[in-house]
Amino acid sequence: MIRSELTEKILSAKLKKGISWPKLAEKIGRSPVWTTAALMGQMPLSADEAKNAGAALDLTEDEVTMLQIVPTRGSLGTAVPVDPTIYRFYELIQVYGTAWKELIHEEFGDGIMSAIDFAMTMERLPDPKGDRVKIVMHGKFLPYRKY
Amino acid sequence: MIRSELTEKILSAKLKKGISWPKLAEKIGRSPVWTTAALMGQMPLSADEAKNAGAALDLTEDEVTMLQIVPTRGSLGTAVPVDPTIYRFYELIQVYGTAWKELIHEEFGDGIMSAIDFAMTMERLPDPKGDRVKIVMHGKFLPYRKY
Amino acid sequence: MIRSELTEKILSAKLKKGISWPKLAEKIGRSPVWTTAALMGQMPLSADEAKNAGAALDLTEDEVTMLQIVPTRGSLGTAVPVDPTIYRFYELIQVYGTAWKELIHEEFGDGIMSAIDFAMTMERLPDPKGDRVKIVMHGKFLPYRKY
Amino acid sequence: MIRSELTEKILSAKLKKGISWPKLAEKIGRSPVWTTAALMGQMPLSADEAKNAGAALDLTEDEVTMLQIVPTRGSLGTAVPVDPTIYRFYELIQVYGTAWKELIHEEFGDGIMSAIDFAMTMERLPDPKGDRVKIVMHGKFLPYRKY
Amino acid sequence: MIRSELTEKILSAKLKKGISWPKLAEKIGRSPVWTTAALMGQMPLSADEAKNAGAALDLTEDEVTMLQIVPTRGSLGTAVPVDPTIYRFYELIQVYGTAWKELIHEEFGDGIMSAIDFAMTMERLPDPKGDRVKIVMHGKFLPYRKY
Amino acid sequence: MIRSELTEKILSAKLKKGISWPKLAEKIGRSPVWTTAALMGQMPLSADEAKNAGAALDLTEDEVTMLQIVPTRGSLGTAVPVDPTIYRFYELIQVYGTAWKELIHEEFGDGIMSAIDFAMTMERLPDPKGDRVKIVMHGKFLPYRKY
Amino acid sequence: MIRSELTEKILSAKLKKGISWPKLAEKIGRSPVWTTAALMGQMPLSADEAKNAGAALDLTEDEVTMLQIVPTRGSLGTAVPVDPTIYRFYELIQVYGTAWKELIHEEFGDGIMSAIDFAMTMERLPDPKGDRVKIVMHGKFLPYRKY
Amino acid sequence: MIRSELTEKILSAKLKKGISWPKLAEKIGRSPVWTTAALMGQMPLSADEAKNAGAALDLTEDEVTMLQIVPTRGSLGTAVPVDPTIYRFYELIQVYGTAWKELIHEEFGDGIMSAIDFAMTMERLPDPKGDRVKIVMHGKFLPYRKY
Amino acid sequence: MIRSELTEKILSAKLKKGISWPKLAEKIGRSPVWTTAALMGQMPLSADEAKNAGAALDLTEDEVTMLQIVPTRGSLGTAVPVDPTIYRFYELIQVYGTAWKELIHEEFGDGIMSAIDFAMTMERLPDPKGDRVKIVMHGKFLPYRKY
Amino acid sequence: MIRSELTEKILSAKLKKGISWPKLAEKIGRSPVWTTAALMGQMPLSADEAKNAGAALDLTEDEVTMLQIVPTRGSLGTAVPVDPTIYRFYELIQVYGTAWKELIHEEFGDGIMSAIDFAMTMERLPDPKGDRVKIVMHGKFLPYRKY
Repeated sequence: MIRSELTEKILSAKLKKGISWPKLAEKIGRSPVWTTAALMGQMPLSADEAKNAGAALDLTEDEVTMLQIVPTRGSLGTAVPVDPTIYRFYELIQVYGTAWKELIHEEFGDGIMSAIDFAMTMERLPDPKGDRVKIVMHGKFLPYRKY
Repeated sequence: MIRSELTEKILSAKLKKGISWPKLAEKIGRSPVWTTAALMGQMPLSADEAKNAGAALDLTEDEVTMLQIVPTRGSLGTAVPVDPTIYRFYELIQVYGTAWKELIHEEFGDGIMSAIDFAMTMERLPDPKGDRVKIVMHGKFLPYRKY
Repeated sequence: MIRSELTEKILSAKLKKGISWPKLAEKIGRSPVWTTAALMGQMPLSADEAKNAGAALDLTEDEVTMLQIVPTRGSLGTAVPVDPTIYRFYELIQVYGTAWKELIHEEFGDGIMSAIDFAMTMERLPDPKGDRVKIVMHGKFLPYRKY
Repeated sequence: MIRSELTEKILSAKLKKGISWPKLAEKIGRSPVWTTAALMGQMPLSADEAKNAGAALDLTEDEVTMLQIVPTRGSLGTAVPVDPTIYRFYELIQVYGTAWKELIHEEFGDGIMSAIDFAMTMERLPDPKGDRVKIVMHGKFLPYRKY
Repeated sequence: MIRSELTEKILSAKLKKGISWPKLAEKIGRSPVWTTAALMGQMPLSADEAKNAGAALDLTEDEVTMLQIVPTRGSLGTAVPVDPTIYRFYELIQVYGTAWKELIHEEFGDGIMSAIDFAMTMERLPDPKGDRVKIVMHGKFLPYRKY
Repeated sequence: MIRSELTEKILSAKLKKGISWPKLAEKIGRSPVWTTAALMGQMPLSADEAKNAGAALDLTEDEVTMLQIVPTRGSLGTAVPVDPTIYRFYELIQVYGTAWKELIHEEFGDGIMSAIDFAMTMERLPDPKGDRVKIVMHGKFLPYRKY
Repeated sequence: MIRSELTEKILSAKLKKGISWPKLAEKIGRSPVWTTAALMGQMPLSADEAKNAGAALDLTEDEVTMLQIVPTRGSLGTAVPVDPTIYRFYELIQVYGTAWKELIHEEFGDGIMSAIDFAMTMERLPDPKGDRVKIVMHGKFLPYRKY
Repeated sequence: MIRSELTEKILSAKLKKGISWPKLAEKIGRSPVWTTAALMGQMPLSADEAKNAGAALDLTEDEVTMLQIVPTRGSLGTAVPVDPTIYRFYELIQVYGTAWKELIHEEFGDGIMSAIDFAMTMERLPDPKGDRVKIVMHGKFLPYRKY
Repeated sequence: MIRSELTEKILSAKLKKGISWPKLAEKIGRSPVWTTAALMGQMPLSADEAKNAGAALDLTEDEVTMLQIVPTRGSLGTAVPVDPTIYRFYELIQVYGTAWKELIHEEFGDGIMSAIDFAMTMERLPDPKGDRVKIVMHGKFLPYRKY
Repeated sequence: MIRSELTEKILSAKLKKGISWPKLAEKIGRSPVWTTAALMGQMPLSADEAKNAGAALDLTEDEVTMLQIVPTRGSLGTAVPVDPTIYRFYELIQVYGTAWKELIHEEFGDGIMSAIDFAMTMERLPDPKGDRVKIVMHGKFLPYRKY
């Protein structure tokens, strides 16, 4: 069994048991976004977290072990994402990429927003003209080292 | 003159005048992120906004007109961004793309977060372990129409 | 079983039972284009629609469940479609893409035609010089939000 | 001068004169979609049409001649379009491509919808929930020749 | 079984039975080029043609049915063909592509040679300096519709 | 001046002088297809041929010299041609490529049709249902050398 | 069984039997380079050669037959080879490609070195500073046909 | 002036002066292949060699200096070469790549043929059936270091 | 069994036995970096090394043999690595590539740092502001041969 | 003037003045690797550093200003580097990428070596069998944040 097959199995088990991502996150003791990314094969779980995930989803011991390995990350499949829901985020980079760079450099100096020391939440923002998806992310600013 | 040359000129003028993006945003009457994206050639300005931008940056009348045309969007240059500051955002999609899809569908049903009816802010989040870049974005949820 | 295998099975079952797409659409209660796209793995069915599709095509319960999951969309396989019937639509974008952009912006202002809040029909247009394929599509205009 | 420079000049002239695409179409005696595509460098004009376009846009004689040459078509610049307004049409092919193929083959047999013997209109469809972009296209069905 | 597996089986059966493409074409009642393309998975056969092909190659009933489905066309596997025999045809397009375009437009006006309403033969041209492959192709000229 | 600029100039001169490709071919003493390809920058002319071409098109001495250099061939610009008139030839390879390979190998054995020791004609084939483009090509069969 | 699986089997059998490529070449009656390329799936063997190869490597009758089919050539897997041993040859083309073209054209005129009517040897060149790989290749010069 | 412009100039000067590559090589004191590659912008010349090249081709002092800079190598322009004369070498890698790897490893062990400590000649091999291009290359075998 | 499956098995066995890479390196008698690369399928082991690896990881005799074959190298899967840990090394080339080239040429003259006659270590560099990954690599300088 | 033109000018000035990278680094007060990368357009200089660089290389005031702007990084030009000196580093990632990932995760846990908080040196390692290029790099380990 390879990791992507385990992801398939997790999605099936989750569907049959009718358990939501936030609920799974609660059982594991992490936030919903992190938990979802982890179970989709992008983050490793600790031994305890994996055991809890395994209990919630009826996974075998081998599968619980597999959840603890640092995964080979990357979930798009192609350089440019094809699924419309995911593509919109790529489009944001196409439209806002240079603006983000300008603003980060002006405010913080030369460097990047870390995608490693990073956290985010996603929530529903009620709006009479149609509810909105609200995403809050924050990553540590890492200045380029001069030497 | 083509749009990318105008962008070059705007960056030079901004540098020489020592005016910041938030300051420019204030003169134009829009938020800093939107203003930066617009002047980087990704959003059209209204006649008034363009006039104000032109006054702040000593642009010619032709250039002020050019700012009002709906641009051909896309600022990366390559399918995968090469600049490290911009790449980190692409990496987020590689790592979190499938998780975002799962969470949006579970919370909202089938559909997408709009990248058109969309707004965002970027700010500094003070942190004793190193300040953080905080980004808040919200886009209207658009459900797939069934017919 | 993964979704593309289910698509294969649906095409076989449809062929053996000699049931047309419009007929299937009728049983499901949706339009022919939407129904075809959905059964080709691009749209999720509701529980009722899936049950009806399953009855018409002798699907198992698991397969009926699978039809209800929001799919990972994208049916081309390659960036540029290779099949001639599908390629002609890509060619239309190559030839008309910039014209569509100009006309949408002139008529509606800055924004896009939604591909989410979108519907279409396809029909035969009798013509003595050779019948024609007629496609009518309409998508909500989404103006770019200024902020 | 190469064709893309002429396109730039046409867009500038049109902007300065404040003349719309439908108005230009009327002067040329063709439909708005075809006229826009032609002036964007995708269709050749006849001598008369070119003369009328030249008069409306103050083009030189050489430019009027250039409008009559069969162009090297293709307006995207990249295999996958980057501009959001144009990308949505590409997304439609990703989502609906295989469905269109199925429906055309079921209704007409083996063959394609011509992108050459083809015509289209684009119009505003008023809608209380937000106006819609309506596109009607029809292309001759071309059956594969058996030999 | 998928179509490419059927192609494999057809090639094996043909080899074992020692039957040539022209012979198969005769049994099916079509020309050799068309027949070869069809059995390689690029053209659908009629019910009668498929039955004859099945008889000549000992195919099962399901396989005979499969031969009648309109296939998803495209036989290269990559954008640029790698096999030298096939690559030479690609090279012809690289070298002659713009010349063909010029000559077709000068002789016929704006339009294309159809690859759908199209037929071809391939034969041996005896030559004392080494026999030659002779290919004759003709496709209907399709003029661009003006509207 | 680089070769592609000379091609531009040749096309302009040809247009202004109203001289056709076959007429140019006659002046040069070569067939129309070869002449067109050569003047489009894909074949070198001999000193005499170049002088005749220069006389017919009012080229400078330097330009006449440039016509005699073996060019860096390749006229598509992209791996997959975007112009519809040229794309149809690419489509033929996608659909017929494997069939051509089968037929050449069955008739001639292992080897290729040369694209170097190669010649072709293109002509109009009158047809009451619409005239057809007829292309006849023949290239020397080159058997793979065994050693 | 497909051809690449047969290649795997040949490599295993060769390893287990401890038989070298030159030894295999001797049994088949061809040169080592040609033999290696053939058994790696790039050249077809004659009936006799295949029988001898089969005897040396314990192949089944079906496998012996498969060795006689003209293969679909191309052994890199990607456009640019990734394995360092193979990449160095690609690098030679990057560095020397234009020089080879210049020298061939100056010495022979317009044309190519055939990769079909071609043969080569590879041998060890003893050298006190470290032995060298020596490759001698010769291909027929094919002049471009003028017509 | 950038290096590729200097290459253009060298080719023009060489053409006008009617001096061959071997002749230039003699003046510089290097072999013809190396000299051609160097003047095509792939190898740096020593001060003396550059002076001699400059004298032979009427180069300016700045140009003579430029010839001495280690160039950014790579002469293809695209990943897969498009020019037929150069493509044939790429085809050889496609067909023989894995065979070369096998033979090098069997004869020398794990390692590569160096493309740096490398030399080659190209000459005409007279042959009654048509002269042949003969290429002899030898590169130092570099064993992988184990550590 | 193919090499990548053996890599999977090695990773599983290593995990279950709780044996570290440096420990495995010690049993094999090579450095940790080389050993890890070798067991990940990038370097061949000698017979003795393979036997020791097999004993440590409970491999079968066939698997021990497979470890001794020179592998087809290349571990990224895509041209640009997607996994963030590996991507950072690619980013270093994007940012420092031209600087490395300048410095190597200035210090050593024209040539390269060998990636074949090459060795490296990776270790933890304690640092109160956060430990650092320290990599030391050295490769033989190979001067371009002039001939 | 754009940044890459400034890089050209810096390289010319450096050549004419015969000043080495380490010497320039000394004048600027940074290490040679960092200085080279900065002047090649990959790192911004402080006002003082830029003034010193300008003095050493006779740059204008505008150019001194340009050196202080955070650049758009990325120096390869293509996804896979073509120049052999730079390619060898890419090859190291192809061969060692997965090993580095394994070793970093085993020693440090889940995370990356930063390419931002990063420093390196490059020096000559004398060796009787041929001097070696020695590179020492160290980047801060950044653990993935769990949240």
